[in-house]
Amino acid sequence: MNSPAMKLVVVGASGRMGQTLIRVICETEGAVLHAAIDRPDSPALGKDAGVLAGVGELGVAITDDPLKAFVDADGVLDFTVPAASVEYAELAAQARIVHVIGTTGMSEEDEAKVKAASRHARIVKSGNMSLGVNLLGVLVKEAAAALSARGWDIEVLEMHHRHKVDAPSGTALLLGEAAAEGRGVSLKDKAVKVRDGHTGAREEGTIGFATLRGGSVVGEHSVLLAGEGETVSLTHKATDRSIFARGAVAAALWARDQKPGLYSMLDVLGLSK
Amino acid sequence: MNSPAMKLVVVGASGRMGQTLIRVICETEGAVLHAAIDRPDSPALGKDAGVLAGVGELGVAITDDPLKAFVDADGVLDFTVPAASVEYAELAAQARIVHVIGTTGMSEEDEAKVKAASRHARIVKSGNMSLGVNLLGVLVKEAAAALSARGWDIEVLEMHHRHKVDAPSGTALLLGEAAAEGRGVSLKDKAVKVRDGHTGAREEGTIGFATLRGGSVVGEHSVLLAGEGETVSLTHKATDRSIFARGAVAAALWARDQKPGLYSMLDVLGLSK
Amino acid sequence: MNSPAMKLVVVGASGRMGQTLIRVICETEGAVLHAAIDRPDSPALGKDAGVLAGVGELGVAITDDPLKAFVDADGVLDFTVPAASVEYAELAAQARIVHVIGTTGMSEEDEAKVKAASRHARIVKSGNMSLGVNLLGVLVKEAAAALSARGWDIEVLEMHHRHKVDAPSGTALLLGEAAAEGRGVSLKDKAVKVRDGHTGAREEGTIGFATLRGGSVVGEHSVLLAGEGETVSLTHKATDRSIFARGAVAAALWARDQKPGLYSMLDVLGLSK
Amino acid sequence: MNSPAMKLVVVGASGRMGQTLIRVICETEGAVLHAAIDRPDSPALGKDAGVLAGVGELGVAITDDPLKAFVDADGVLDFTVPAASVEYAELAAQARIVHVIGTTGMSEEDEAKVKAASRHARIVKSGNMSLGVNLLGVLVKEAAAALSARGWDIEVLEMHHRHKVDAPSGTALLLGEAAAEGRGVSLKDKAVKVRDGHTGAREEGTIGFATLRGGSVVGEHSVLLAGEGETVSLTHKATDRSIFARGAVAAALWARDQKPGLYSMLDVLGLSK
Repeated sequence: MNSPAMKLVVVGASGRMGQTLIRVICETEGAVLHAAIDRPDSPALGKDAGVLAGVGELGVAITDDPLKAFVDADGVLDFTVPAASVEYAELAAQARIVHVIGTTGMSEEDEAKVKAASRHARIVKSGNMSLGVNLLGVLVKEAAAALSARGWDIEVLEMHHRHKVDAPSGTALLLGEAAAEGRGVSLKDKAVKVRDGHTGAREEGTIGFATLRGGSVVGEHSVLLAGEGETVSLTHKATDRSIFARGAVAAALWARDQKPGLYSMLDVLGLSK
Repeated sequence: MNSPAMKLVVVGASGRMGQTLIRVICETEGAVLHAAIDRPDSPALGKDAGVLAGVGELGVAITDDPLKAFVDADGVLDFTVPAASVEYAELAAQARIVHVIGTTGMSEEDEAKVKAASRHARIVKSGNMSLGVNLLGVLVKEAAAALSARGWDIEVLEMHHRHKVDAPSGTALLLGEAAAEGRGVSLKDKAVKVRDGHTGAREEGTIGFATLRGGSVVGEHSVLLAGEGETVSLTHKATDRSIFARGAVAAALWARDQKPGLYSMLDVLGLSK
Repeated sequence: MNSPAMKLVVVGASGRMGQTLIRVICETEGAVLHAAIDRPDSPALGKDAGVLAGVGELGVAITDDPLKAFVDADGVLDFTVPAASVEYAELAAQARIVHVIGTTGMSEEDEAKVKAASRHARIVKSGNMSLGVNLLGVLVKEAAAALSARGWDIEVLEMHHRHKVDAPSGTALLLGEAAAEGRGVSLKDKAVKVRDGHTGAREEGTIGFATLRGGSVVGEHSVLLAGEGETVSLTHKATDRSIFARGAVAAALWARDQKPGLYSMLDVLGLSK
Repeated sequence: MNSPAMKLVVVGASGRMGQTLIRVICETEGAVLHAAIDRPDSPALGKDAGVLAGVGELGVAITDDPLKAFVDADGVLDFTVPAASVEYAELAAQARIVHVIGTTGMSEEDEAKVKAASRHARIVKSGNMSLGVNLLGVLVKEAAAALSARGWDIEVLEMHHRHKVDAPSGTALLLGEAAAEGRGVSLKDKAVKVRDGHTGAREEGTIGFATLRGGSVVGEHSVLLAGEGETVSLTHKATDRSIFARGAVAAALWARDQKPGLYSMLDVLGLSK
């Protein structure tokens, strides 16, 4: 017998991410939208969450009352702001439900409160909810550890749309960190981010970065390990910003069967040590 | 203080693989050619191993006396035939040295003899000595386990030169096996090797294979895990057949510091459980 | 001095493609939505075209009167059905404006009527309005002609989402045709669509196809020309179905300055002979 | 009836390129090694050209007498130095044969002499004899002209082995030049070679370069044209330095049937205007 669908609350429901979460819940077997919460001053209060998200009427009006929403819910999906997320974590603890937190920018104090809440809530927290990117980070670390700097050169290549204003991307740097960790070195000491003109031969043990920009590319990252006569490359391509919402819903479904605690996406992927 | 260079014996020295091994030893810091062995009826007996391999005179004449060669050696590199490899394993056990075996086609009886020899010899045995391919297999298995069949479709793509007479390649099938293992299914039940005409939608949980042939491509293999809005791909490209010899020399250097036993390339890569 | 924005009519305005056309017009500098037409029985009549397309009110109500709409317009974008497109072509001829036709499935008789209308209208007609795919076809033909079958093997690789029910894709076959044309051979005689088991060596002059299926991939096509020691590959990746609407708008803007006549996307790209 | 094999002379026969030319001639149907020439002070004089090149005895001794060698030859393959190439061009003109010149660094005066010789000799001269790279340059120029800077961003990516000391590669710059030419702009004004830190959004019309270094990669070049929702990429991968020799032999076979004149690799490919 199948368990009943997991009843999920979306907080920050009228934002771009909130709407994406609502759409992904509707597409996901085993999940159902239970409530949709927004700030007390939101113009979206009272509107149907499904209509707002462009998936047609769902019979779930947006409210500003998380307490009531959490009571009968199984989980909360939360890409909001630190202060709100801390509050939601405490409510999730009281309700003993799942809380998936994609919110970034928390202070140490915030983190401590989330940690405390995880004694009773099942919390999954990550700065990047994409399953693929999290997996790639783990594989890169392993590969960098297995193939020694002696014969294998590591390069990180990324491409993003023409509107991106910095380089390399945060994810490229995270993958570089994963490689450095695998090698037992500091990325700061080993990163090479510019190659132009007379560069000299590649220095052993360095980690190179190369950046492409153009079109509407959502995000592509490759880590290459280039040896004598062979190259291993590990690549992630995102074509849709919904992948973060999908990862959050997958995390919620996974956490439903776990003990209370604070988890990462690596736990969801079964890849934590 | 550095340890002295590892003294390596190449058996089957006049063959194509033997010559490649000799060249790779010459390029590898920490390794030195100690002796070169060939069959008693080989026309290469007495010739200089370096001259034969195209790296200039090394002062090592090819002989047919492994016993004498092994006495003062640290390791043996062996891509020959089962009967010879079994005999070399026994000699390596007597000499208590390293024996790297790339020979394929052994019977169970042969395997048992190798196993017995590994009580005293440090034996590394693998059907594919490429570090990159072995690493890829491990990563594929992990990725397939982490990303569920529910949302992630696995495809294996390979390309080889125009002279290859079968498809998919043995390595593509190995990678498919690794994926199937990660998913806890049998490749036999899940493999889809032909798509032509009206195929219907892709069946969940299947593992697809696609084959490209052309030019002089040594070997390229990619495993794709394609999800909703994101794709992870893990790729190995070989551009030089010397990678098998390089892997064998790397295995020998690694095994030097191990206890007697029977190891695989995963042990060399530090990736066995 | 800039010319005023091109006034465009979208026919079939309430359909998926019609809505995409409306969105792309709104994003395109130099183009403006002039009118939106739908069938007389469409429930969308009277609604604001912008609201329907999700880009906010544009002050353009959907009507069923093309005659009135075309009078002051500069062009018509049309992905509908053959009978409607023929009628629109005749109206476009009367109004002496641009007519971009992405409609497929026309009979020879339909084609003749469109041809006749092009004496007064500027008509651009194509079965695939993507600029990138049309360009790729031209480049593939040139490459196949330049690199002889003697030393260069042609392979066509495509990947699409898991819901696609046939293989190879229509675009893959078009690219194969372009290659065959470049070589002066018939694709029917040269295509190899299945490789499984003992295939024997690759036959010179054949054109191979390989198919990947998975995830939500919109469409990727590569044509490889693999020679001895080098490979040329020509690739198109679509990440968004809007590319056909974008190509149609680009075609309209291009056609504005042309003489009446019947054009293809190759003319738009400046690549026709 | 087949024409007899083309009798080719290799000059600079004992050098690395000379030896590769000899090997490629031996592999090429329709070509035969007629003579092998080296400098008067070369220690290789008198040796068998095939033995030197590692393909076994060919019965062609290396000499220092080009005059005699050219008399009965059909063509000369020449990757030497400007002074020598000018002299060989004059001899080729006297013998009315084919002269393929891969020599670089000629002065204007040298070029004028080669031009003069081409009244009687069939000369093919190019700084890069790879068929694939020459083709790619033509396709890049066409693609850049067809897809306007307005919506399509051009990026050039290259990867080479760890020993390469400059960036971007000469070929990457050539491809950038081809793109700039297609767009009718100057590469100097549009090239962006460094992206690090806060770069701001991509500037329209620029041509970006990204560089990867690692392993033993012989040379990979990609030109991307990234638009809204679609990307076209044109790629060349070299896996073997013999491609320059192969291109030279292909050029010789092509030139055999041409009138005297000065040709480029684009003529050989049938791609000159």
